Amino acid sequence: MKQTILLLVSLLCAVQAGAQSWQKLFNGKDLQGWERLNGKAEYKVQDGAIVGVSRLGEPNTFLATKQTFGDFILEFEFRIDEGLNSGVQIRSESRKDYNNYRVHGYQFEIDPSARAWCGGIYDEARRGWLYPLTENPAAQSAYRHGVWNKARIEAVGKSIRTWINGIPCANIWDDMTHKGFIALQVHAISDPKDEGKTVAWRNIRICTRHPEKHLTRETAPEVNCVPNTLSDAEVADGWVLLWDGKSTAGWRGAKLDGFPRHGWVIEHGVLKVCKSDGAESANGGDIITDRKYRNFILKVDFKITEGANSGIKYFVNPDLNKGAGSAIGCEFQILDDDRHPDAKLGVKGNRKAASLYDLIPAPEQKPMRKKEFNTATIVVEGKRVTHYLNGVKMVEYERDNQMWNALVAYSKYRDWENFGNAEEGYILLQDHGDEVWFRNIKIKEL
Amino acid sequence: MKQTILLLVSLLCAVQAGAQSWQKLFNGKDLQGWERLNGKAEYKVQDGAIVGVSRLGEPNTFLATKQTFGDFILEFEFRIDEGLNSGVQIRSESRKDYNNYRVHGYQFEIDPSARAWCGGIYDEARRGWLYPLTENPAAQSAYRHGVWNKARIEAVGKSIRTWINGIPCANIWDDMTHKGFIALQVHAISDPKDEGKTVAWRNIRICTRHPEKHLTRETAPEVNCVPNTLSDAEVADGWVLLWDGKSTAGWRGAKLDGFPRHGWVIEHGVLKVCKSDGAESANGGDIITDRKYRNFILKVDFKITEGANSGIKYFVNPDLNKGAGSAIGCEFQILDDDRHPDAKLGVKGNRKAASLYDLIPAPEQKPMRKKEFNTATIVVEGKRVTHYLNGVKMVEYERDNQMWNALVAYSKYRDWENFGNAEEGYILLQDHGDEVWFRNIKIKEL
Repeated sequence: MKQTILLLVSLLCAVQAGAQSWQKLFNGKDLQGWERLNGKAEYKVQDGAIVGVSRLGEPNTFLATKQTFGDFILEFEFRIDEGLNSGVQIRSESRKDYNNYRVHGYQFEIDPSARAWCGGIYDEARRGWLYPLTENPAAQSAYRHGVWNKARIEAVGKSIRTWINGIPCANIWDDMTHKGFIALQVHAISDPKDEGKTVAWRNIRICTRHPEKHLTRETAPEVNCVPNTLSDAEVADGWVLLWDGKSTAGWRGAKLDGFPRHGWVIEHGVLKVCKSDGAESANGGDIITDRKYRNFILKVDFKITEGANSGIKYFVNPDLNKGAGSAIGCEFQILDDDRHPDAKLGVKGNRKAASLYDLIPAPEQKPMRKKEFNTATIVVEGKRVTHYLNGVKMVEYERDNQMWNALVAYSKYRDWENFGNAEEGYILLQDHGDEVWFRNIKIKEL
Repeated sequence: MKQTILLLVSLLCAVQAGAQSWQKLFNGKDLQGWERLNGKAEYKVQDGAIVGVSRLGEPNTFLATKQTFGDFILEFEFRIDEGLNSGVQIRSESRKDYNNYRVHGYQFEIDPSARAWCGGIYDEARRGWLYPLTENPAAQSAYRHGVWNKARIEAVGKSIRTWINGIPCANIWDDMTHKGFIALQVHAISDPKDEGKTVAWRNIRICTRHPEKHLTRETAPEVNCVPNTLSDAEVADGWVLLWDGKSTAGWRGAKLDGFPRHGWVIEHGVLKVCKSDGAESANGGDIITDRKYRNFILKVDFKITEGANSGIKYFVNPDLNKGAGSAIGCEFQILDDDRHPDAKLGVKGNRKAASLYDLIPAPEQKPMRKKEFNTATIVVEGKRVTHYLNGVKMVEYERDNQMWNALVAYSKYRDWENFGNAEEGYILLQDHGDEVWFRNIKIKEL
């Protein structure tokens, strides 16, 4: 009998602990608990929903909770007229010291346009797009036009994830802001025909009690927005940082025992090769990893300066070229295609950005951002190698076969015996005498 | 009762028809029915076997049956001392009008040397090797040293096939001689240490009654020795002659409506491109097939003359190059590597024989016979293409991908858009102003 009671009590406790408790953010009748910020677009309550009305000449307007929230699961339904853009802010702020109260922070995107990025994450008035749905194209069909759509946002620690109608949309790992208000956006409009169009929200509820116990398993591919770190998911997946974001640890000059004494600078989480005279490895010189790699996925974020030339080499053997110039290996080319003369040299563009330098040209159409960081990804699986630029495949080849050797025989590598056929080699960042920035240097060995 | 008797009679007939009848060629006691030809090496009977004894200074000697045989199955056992070479002639002859009685014809090879071509077929004193075991390397381990080995030869119609210890060795399709004696060879020797060594045969029996009913199913890969024909097996396997050995049917000038009026000659089953001034397609001009081919195995026998240049092209589009020079397509290069200047041009030998011209070099070591016919084999399976020279793989590549296009961009084909990427094309024999012979042009579509 005593045991039965104990069992019942245990069961009750378990049910208690497992039950998800929700708090309504909107009472269905008025805007109690909310305040309008940033603009003067109208918000009204109609049929149990909050309805925002577009108004010409107004900036982005936000209806924000007076309360702030840190870790939570937020659910709501939304419906939006075609032609409008909107969103729901989370962990957002409005402070005098940030752009005179400009509302800023993470936004769950509402975007019924042809681009179809609903459910993506935009960093309003701060860093811009953190998770466009190019990161997860499968989610572009989650949103349904002209009807109520159900949204879910899980923000716990550094992880912010979104769903629309049960389909995983975005997934970021970030540490910019840990807490803030939730706000419903009425976006500014420029076309008079959009005047009076509406966006509506209803059944807005939040769970702040142990949200970590109610997380959704199925998730979108993650984007880590914190430079030079690994997210929990990246660590679990076997990723390792090749650069710690602050020291020279793990790197040395390709022809030196230590790190170059000049020509490379580390500041604000960026590894910079300095401008000199544009010559190949003649200033600080190339730097290489302290060990070799065989099969891997390598990711390197890079940002060029005007007219710059640099590169990421792999299968590098620093003992091959003891003379002047860069160390020998296969190169993911980094170049300002518009301004550096090398873009017009070589054969059919095989010295342009993202190309396998002097061997295989990347397509002319490439997602290169000249003024921002770009992600170079190099995948080596035995003889098969692939280059990606910002997630788009640029070059794919198989080395160590007759056709590869025939191609090399035509290139400037013709005199390096067995070029590109090594089973392993060092990874190299090139000094080509131009300023180029690197960060987020990560590798996953396969 | 009547039915039962009929059934019994039928069964008896069937057994009668199915029973294989053998005739002994050697009585186990003396050499009755045999005669010695060509040389004076000794043959004796010992322990129920015919023993041939090597003798210095003698030419190849043969112990031949006085009887001749056409279609048959022959079985015997043989044992040979290390250091000797021997063989068993079939359908062979010794006539005054052929080299003053020189024994000649098909020989079942007995070759205990390291080369291990036992069971191959050699055409004694006539065409030489018809079936070296390079055609069927698996058979090289069939022969066992120092013991009695069991041989089987099936000669029916144009088909001659051999086995050693039950393992299929050779398989030719030929029509040179239909009937002749069987003879046991004692090969000439040059080393005094081989004097007195022996080769022995026993249990020699032949089946001449309906041998076609007792053929072995498992067989070695076939070699068709009859120029410009298809064997029964080739027909069954889907092969087609691209040239009939005598007319211009199926071919036309690459830039003409008909066959060139000069510059090409057909004689004695050979299609010859004539010597002119060594220029590319400037005399008779290239010739092409009358239709396109997509996936196929193409075989072409070719024989060069001193310093010659020619080629076999595929995926040819004769509409591309309307001007001077050869039609555009991928080329299996035909060249006298030692004497033609093109061998030293190009990059790392990519203009030498069997290479994919100007793109991928064949290995320096290649089984090219300068004074004989060679077989070029080109296999196209979608994007994958392979060149073979006399059965040895020379070049293997995959076209219509980024690396292929990058390689082409470096070559002399750089200005022909989409070079080599056509799904189908004509097959071409090149006129490069040098005399080159072609025959056995066969294709099997895949």
